[in-house]
Amino acid sequence: MREVVYTVRVEFGDCDPARIVWFPNFFRWIDAASRHFFVECGVPPWHETEKTLGIIGTPLVDTHASFRKTASYGDVLRIHTSIAEWRGKSFVQRYRVTRGDDVIMECDEVRIFAARREGDPTGIRAVPAPEEIRKLCG
Amino acid sequence: MREVVYTVRVEFGDCDPARIVWFPNFFRWIDAASRHFFVECGVPPWHETEKTLGIIGTPLVDTHASFRKTASYGDVLRIHTSIAEWRGKSFVQRYRVTRGDDVIMECDEVRIFAARREGDPTGIRAVPAPEEIRKLCG
Amino acid sequence: MREVVYTVRVEFGDCDPARIVWFPNFFRWIDAASRHFFVECGVPPWHETEKTLGIIGTPLVDTHASFRKTASYGDVLRIHTSIAEWRGKSFVQRYRVTRGDDVIMECDEVRIFAARREGDPTGIRAVPAPEEIRKLCG
Amino acid sequence: MREVVYTVRVEFGDCDPARIVWFPNFFRWIDAASRHFFVECGVPPWHETEKTLGIIGTPLVDTHASFRKTASYGDVLRIHTSIAEWRGKSFVQRYRVTRGDDVIMECDEVRIFAARREGDPTGIRAVPAPEEIRKLCG
Repeated sequence: MREVVYTVRVEFGDCDPARIVWFPNFFRWIDAASRHFFVECGVPPWHETEKTLGIIGTPLVDTHASFRKTASYGDVLRIHTSIAEWRGKSFVQRYRVTRGDDVIMECDEVRIFAARREGDPTGIRAVPAPEEIRKLCG
Repeated sequence: MREVVYTVRVEFGDCDPARIVWFPNFFRWIDAASRHFFVECGVPPWHETEKTLGIIGTPLVDTHASFRKTASYGDVLRIHTSIAEWRGKSFVQRYRVTRGDDVIMECDEVRIFAARREGDPTGIRAVPAPEEIRKLCG
Repeated sequence: MREVVYTVRVEFGDCDPARIVWFPNFFRWIDAASRHFFVECGVPPWHETEKTLGIIGTPLVDTHASFRKTASYGDVLRIHTSIAEWRGKSFVQRYRVTRGDDVIMECDEVRIFAARREGDPTGIRAVPAPEEIRKLCG
Repeated sequence: MREVVYTVRVEFGDCDPARIVWFPNFFRWIDAASRHFFVECGVPPWHETEKTLGIIGTPLVDTHASFRKTASYGDVLRIHTSIAEWRGKSFVQRYRVTRGDDVIMECDEVRIFAARREGDPTGIRAVPAPEEIRKLCG
């Protein structure tokens, strides 16, 4: 299982009047970590995979997050990202957000590999994860 | 079970290069809907309940969301909010985001009622939901 | 001079650890107010004006804002929007953000009417404001 | 004149349906660059200067920005920050956002050094920039 780390510095404006990270910001960082993971694994950008594999992206269909400890500005967070499971036409992308030895937040997402639906310019459909992408992501 | 609706108009800047709502924005709206629910139920602001009940807020400990359909700018979304379950020192706050008859997203959060931990200025502890708040929220 | 009002309710998550609106959020609301102005004036969506007038939008080139008083969550803000000046290929869009009788923020933006540059798929060029749009915006 | 650089990687979610950075995000980054500047210059955190100098922060009173070129996801931006002018009870903080040799955006802010107003728990007043802070910021 390959793991890629994305680093975030928490800024003043990421925090709310309780002086802690306002939780929607964690999802902002997790979305960046998701893309960073594929880039680091060597998966080409989606505008290229659209031509070669028909894949236009990995839309999110489900997310489940647990908040363990709070974080605040000045903190440096590390988002450890991996693919926890391949499930036919979907996969589980897993995130563990740490500050030093502390676990701050954990999140499991279900995403699909999306291709365009023929004859429907805006429709998409889930397709099996291409073997070459699975190999790159370990 | 009392239900309160919070209405959101999706703006251009809420959408990403795929022209759909960038998903962290849903959590921004849900956080606002959570607070709106308590206000509409007649629960006093937390700076008042701190004095009367010792309650300083309802921090989020767990969230689980499913994305059913995409939304884009110009859409008007309705966030239907209720308390799905009271569980001793925590509760489940439930959200259903709709656009007309379409369900766009569903989310269940676990939150606690928090009080200050004595002798520790920054610590908090979970306390049972006060009876008067439970009554107000139906 | 036509004026259109866009209303914003300040939420907890819009505020920073100083308990006041974190200033980038004002620009988020102003961008929404800019589009709302054109919609209320009856200007068709840009994907339609692209076909009829060649106009694909009104990109921002310059903004100047003054912050008069702070705002916090629970406040209801009104953003009064108008076109202060037509200047050949650009125009000044003006915003006054109020809370009751208080002026919270004022902002003047310079925007252009943009058309595609021929033979360059990503290039844009400024064009004179079409007479029909100027009339609609008063 | 001392200059400090703050680096930003533009993420997918920072961009709008026009596929370019949604402009309020520039102000998010500029606010982080402002604080980063003082930290790098060795100015103590405001909760310390409150005790030693009476200074509780540097609120923004005016900002003026020009957008020169667009940026998109994948871009790495450098925000060059300096104090352009000391003006008695206020100062001009200047930002130049570059991508390689391209200038993307320029911004001049007027900020004040704020102290608490005696006998008024929420009031603030502008005070002259303390000599020790001016020296640290070059």
